Amino acid sequence: MSYYADAVSQLIKMLENVDRWLTAGEEHAKKKSFDPNVLLTQRLAPDQFALLRQVQAACDAAKFFAARLSGKTAPSHPDTETNMAELHARIGAVTEYLKGFSAADFAGADTCIVPLGFAPGKGMKGADYAREMALPNFYFHCVTAYSILRHNGVELGKRDYIGNMAIIDI
Amino acid sequence: MSYYADAVSQLIKMLENVDRWLTAGEEHAKKKSFDPNVLLTQRLAPDQFALLRQVQAACDAAKFFAARLSGKTAPSHPDTETNMAELHARIGAVTEYLKGFSAADFAGADTCIVPLGFAPGKGMKGADYAREMALPNFYFHCVTAYSILRHNGVELGKRDYIGNMAIIDI
Repeated sequence: MSYYADAVSQLIKMLENVDRWLTAGEEHAKKKSFDPNVLLTQRLAPDQFALLRQVQAACDAAKFFAARLSGKTAPSHPDTETNMAELHARIGAVTEYLKGFSAADFAGADTCIVPLGFAPGKGMKGADYAREMALPNFYFHCVTAYSILRHNGVELGKRDYIGNMAIIDI
Repeated sequence: MSYYADAVSQLIKMLENVDRWLTAGEEHAKKKSFDPNVLLTQRLAPDQFALLRQVQAACDAAKFFAARLSGKTAPSHPDTETNMAELHARIGAVTEYLKGFSAADFAGADTCIVPLGFAPGKGMKGADYAREMALPNFYFHCVTAYSILRHNGVELGKRDYIGNMAIIDI
């Protein structure tokens, strides 16, 4: 099941990208002489999560992807972060956790049953959960974090979003 | 290679979700008595695509995912849309195209080489292209379209974003 291990590599890379977008936000704040943590309170709609919670949610989506599809219990992260430094540390903790997984951990991922916390008695087959919920949800929070920073003038572009790719000569 | 066919099903579902978000935007515009096509000109940053182009880009990302990973030539869509009705039609044309693919079309997808238009002489292995570029790019444009609508007051929530899922009793 190298598909799931490869997906985890992609989650790690994206979270490392998010970490760099936050750093770009800090550099922008320094240049403009405002507190970088103000960026963490920004949101695109009043009933949408602010940047801080978007990043926490991206971290959780990645963590639960790996844990649930390998039958492990994810480490607890109680969402206590309040500033850029703590958010960088949260991303670092989750990427370290994700780096501990290998293809063997996902041997039963395709057909395992993932219970849905918001619907007792309901669940999804692992492959469906990955494709229909975990990955779209992960990208939702990453892209929204990116968009909040872009909307607030932070200089980022598509390459910062995509990050490194396995490009070869042809 | 049912992975790629399943991924195409997910792309179809997400594009059908995007179509419904646009309809929600039209209903919002009607309620507020403004021209719904104004929404298509909105953007989150001055140097980012407006909603119209975000939807066109999501359509292209989905179309090229299927075409490039199956060795086919994608149909041409010259980005001539200027209003909601034409954008709905574009989404409909692309989802119809995507519905013509089956698992057998992607027999060589994992190891095929996808040339990169922006880097002559360079390419990516199919599996890497799907995971590192095509899907993140597709979700980028879908989520940004969603965020532009949310930012402009259209009533959408996470369920509208995720859409239907294969939920089972457990």
